[in-house]
Amino acid sequence: MANQISIFDTTLRDGTQGEGISLTADDKLKIALKLNALGVHYIEGGNPGSNGKDIEFFQRIKQYSMQAKITAFGSTRRKNSVAEHDTSLNRIVESGVPAATLVGKAWDFHVHTALQTTLEENLAMISESLAYLKLKGMEAIYDAEHFFDGYKNNPEYAIAALKKAAEAGTDWIVLCDTNGGTMPVEIHEIVSRVAAEIQTPIGIHTHNDCELAVANTLAAVQAGARQVQGTINGYGERCGNANLCSIIPNLQLKLGYSCISDEQLRSLTSNARYISEIANVHMPVGQAYVGNAAFAHKGGIHVSAIMRDSKTYEHIAPELVGNKQRVLVSELAGQSNVLVKAQELNLNMNLDNAETRAVIDKIKDLEHQGYQFEGADASLELLLRQASGQLEEVFTLESFKISVEKTSNRPVISEAIVKVTVQGETMFTVAEGNGPVNALDNALRKALVQFYPVIQTMHLSDYKVRVLDEKETTAAKVRVLIESQDIENSWSTVGVSNNIIEASWEALVDSMRYALIGKQPIVASHDSQRQHLGLVNH
Amino acid sequence: MANQISIFDTTLRDGTQGEGISLTADDKLKIALKLNALGVHYIEGGNPGSNGKDIEFFQRIKQYSMQAKITAFGSTRRKNSVAEHDTSLNRIVESGVPAATLVGKAWDFHVHTALQTTLEENLAMISESLAYLKLKGMEAIYDAEHFFDGYKNNPEYAIAALKKAAEAGTDWIVLCDTNGGTMPVEIHEIVSRVAAEIQTPIGIHTHNDCELAVANTLAAVQAGARQVQGTINGYGERCGNANLCSIIPNLQLKLGYSCISDEQLRSLTSNARYISEIANVHMPVGQAYVGNAAFAHKGGIHVSAIMRDSKTYEHIAPELVGNKQRVLVSELAGQSNVLVKAQELNLNMNLDNAETRAVIDKIKDLEHQGYQFEGADASLELLLRQASGQLEEVFTLESFKISVEKTSNRPVISEAIVKVTVQGETMFTVAEGNGPVNALDNALRKALVQFYPVIQTMHLSDYKVRVLDEKETTAAKVRVLIESQDIENSWSTVGVSNNIIEASWEALVDSMRYALIGKQPIVASHDSQRQHLGLVNH
Repeated sequence: MANQISIFDTTLRDGTQGEGISLTADDKLKIALKLNALGVHYIEGGNPGSNGKDIEFFQRIKQYSMQAKITAFGSTRRKNSVAEHDTSLNRIVESGVPAATLVGKAWDFHVHTALQTTLEENLAMISESLAYLKLKGMEAIYDAEHFFDGYKNNPEYAIAALKKAAEAGTDWIVLCDTNGGTMPVEIHEIVSRVAAEIQTPIGIHTHNDCELAVANTLAAVQAGARQVQGTINGYGERCGNANLCSIIPNLQLKLGYSCISDEQLRSLTSNARYISEIANVHMPVGQAYVGNAAFAHKGGIHVSAIMRDSKTYEHIAPELVGNKQRVLVSELAGQSNVLVKAQELNLNMNLDNAETRAVIDKIKDLEHQGYQFEGADASLELLLRQASGQLEEVFTLESFKISVEKTSNRPVISEAIVKVTVQGETMFTVAEGNGPVNALDNALRKALVQFYPVIQTMHLSDYKVRVLDEKETTAAKVRVLIESQDIENSWSTVGVSNNIIEASWEALVDSMRYALIGKQPIVASHDSQRQHLGLVNH
Repeated sequence: MANQISIFDTTLRDGTQGEGISLTADDKLKIALKLNALGVHYIEGGNPGSNGKDIEFFQRIKQYSMQAKITAFGSTRRKNSVAEHDTSLNRIVESGVPAATLVGKAWDFHVHTALQTTLEENLAMISESLAYLKLKGMEAIYDAEHFFDGYKNNPEYAIAALKKAAEAGTDWIVLCDTNGGTMPVEIHEIVSRVAAEIQTPIGIHTHNDCELAVANTLAAVQAGARQVQGTINGYGERCGNANLCSIIPNLQLKLGYSCISDEQLRSLTSNARYISEIANVHMPVGQAYVGNAAFAHKGGIHVSAIMRDSKTYEHIAPELVGNKQRVLVSELAGQSNVLVKAQELNLNMNLDNAETRAVIDKIKDLEHQGYQFEGADASLELLLRQASGQLEEVFTLESFKISVEKTSNRPVISEAIVKVTVQGETMFTVAEGNGPVNALDNALRKALVQFYPVIQTMHLSDYKVRVLDEKETTAAKVRVLIESQDIENSWSTVGVSNNIIEASWEALVDSMRYALIGKQPIVASHDSQRQHLGLVNH
């Protein structure tokens, strides 16, 4: 097990320090479940001492059975106080998690400047805080903040901080390059020296301010570190934290270390993309291993060589991380994905079949227009079921019209009018809403509920807008992703248009169509039943 | 001069292999001039053997006096032929550049699989092609393609390729990690061995497939390489080339090498951002050194520490690379930010003043509602000018109304009606658009252009939507950020509402108000002038 590396994910804590990243307790729950499936060993959920949302997360995650250890984050106790009376430390203990990370200063400059206390008091803060967690039966992880800057400035003091943590019984000592300014050669040298002096298992926590967070992490592991702290897609303050999506395959496929199972590694790409959707952060196409262009070939010479042997221009087989080869311009990808999905749905599809080829062409065309089915399974399923003749349309659109009206100093008014044909009947409904899309949602529901009362049990749970070609500005194409749920399930749908209203409408319609798959309508002959429900349209 | 590193920029050649990057000859010219100002030593302009656009670039760049050497790119001669009859090689010679890079195979597997020739013939291709360039009086650079993969597979052959190049008189031997799969430790070891065997100066060319291109470049330099090939912002095929915007400051500020002047280094951020605009590629906010968030602080503890000393959470002074510190929204940070901004605008504000405290409270309240002035400087400036009584309103809103109508199988129609009072006149305009916001933009312009023809010179350059409280879904609050520009300037504005139309309207209005600060309207008495312009409203 000498080559086993513990993966400590802090997407939900340090990752949320990134500009533009804000996660609800719901988002955190979804991400934690994916991280667990990916096989990370620790999931740092947040800071219960500073944030009510994080306390909610720790409560809710208890309902799930997890392989990963959920951990809480906090600082060493306040200066000149007592650990057992420290509110933040007690919030961590009360949160009921099995492990916690405490950050404590290891750079003398920071003790003076930021903490404004004595070097001795800081050592006592580290020692007493970690000992308190151990006393409470928890696994304790010491994040030695600014360790490398500290070591370069005052190696004796930096090492003294680690030794205090070790004496207090901490389970891990994690060396942090908090400002991200250290070079790989320095990291390797300093971690080697620490490993020679300290018996406690060592971890590494780096930041990407020099575009070296991944390299610094590898250098530390090669010098003896056995825990890696990082985030999915490298989210984090300033330039981000070390990107686990690059570190895990580098360690496992290139350097002979073991982190997660081969099968879990094959879920890396889909997990990274899912989490970028939840965080609503655009994933760079060229992101290493998991980006959409990571195995995309553009140059003619490259393309003809990879046709002979992929190894000519691919450093690994993309399938190892769940990604795929793409040849730009002439898209060859997508086919197998569609077939796999069709198989899952028990739809009879194969490439010898003209309908199958037609639906694949249609999907390719839609993706080219900006649709993205990676985050919209339900829309993809609707396309496939439709192509297989397995879908009865629940309604057809005659027209919709929305209006938004604002008169100076009065609240804005949004209305939607929808005309649809359901079960041969024309339904003409109007509704207000908090905005144009909400009004559309309300009007469409009003039309459908009379035939499908079950629609009342579903609601939209997430709504995301992404501008696709930003240089076109207000005339730009937008992609809308809607997530919906009923009592048992949740599903995602997509719409794309130059017009945000139309894109939202598409995603909304798909959401309701999906909710009603296999549901029987209350038809005209059941008018009495509808009358009984007070639903008849006059 | 042992620590002088030659910077070889291939943004215009290898950079254009990146997905979504396409540069016209005009774009290339603009970028080349910026690269020259930045102080890179070589600018690889393109491949005259394969591309007419590149030949145009080489012609046009000759009109400029450049410090940097312009270089052309090509392959070694075709197999079983003669260098002096090779069309591609002759195109390079004819392009009139002083230096050229020839790529040639150094991996036996590639010779067999991609070239489909013998190992001996490949060596002859390398040798004869480089000798031909030298015969023509050019500086010759040999890019040893897949050198590291080749060395790992067959070190004798890989080294033989380099020796052939050296014997032919090449000026540089550049070791390429073409597939981007090599680890930093391997790079260091292999470059060290090559440096011990080869007298010709060595260069390094890496790709970012493992998120290690920067680290691999540094490792090669530390092992003896003295030329670095890379691109601005790391553009390039698949995951991109080595990013010069990270490599140059790492070499110069961290490792004691010399690349460009200190003054040129201070232009790094503005050059990187300019080139991302020309390439029309979104720059990640967290990009190392030059990103907008590279020195942005969000956490409360971080903010109070950097107030005491920036060094607590900044690895370098941002000014060294022309970037700047930013403090993201926080109660404490807000105040000093506002005062700093007011000072910049020569507005007399201080905390002893009731109006100042009122505007700070207003800004805090707006931020609490979801406004974000960090990314909307112009909206902040409007608030401050208004609070100081320094702003004349250009118009007041009476009402607006938008409608979006969709009839089955027909394109969606978006219309906006705007009623505003400008200079005492009520303007009532209607316009269509690609979507509701575009229609609003068009209608408002139509109302204002009659008084402010200058409005025609500005346009919106970016439009972003973010859903703030996503769990409210279609009734959720959204924030709209609009970026606008005219001939000289660009500015950003913000709007927040439950209604996406209203939020867009707010940002749109602020954008136009900002554009018109200090501009004199054409008033009623100038009706003849307006008539002359065909602008009078009937």
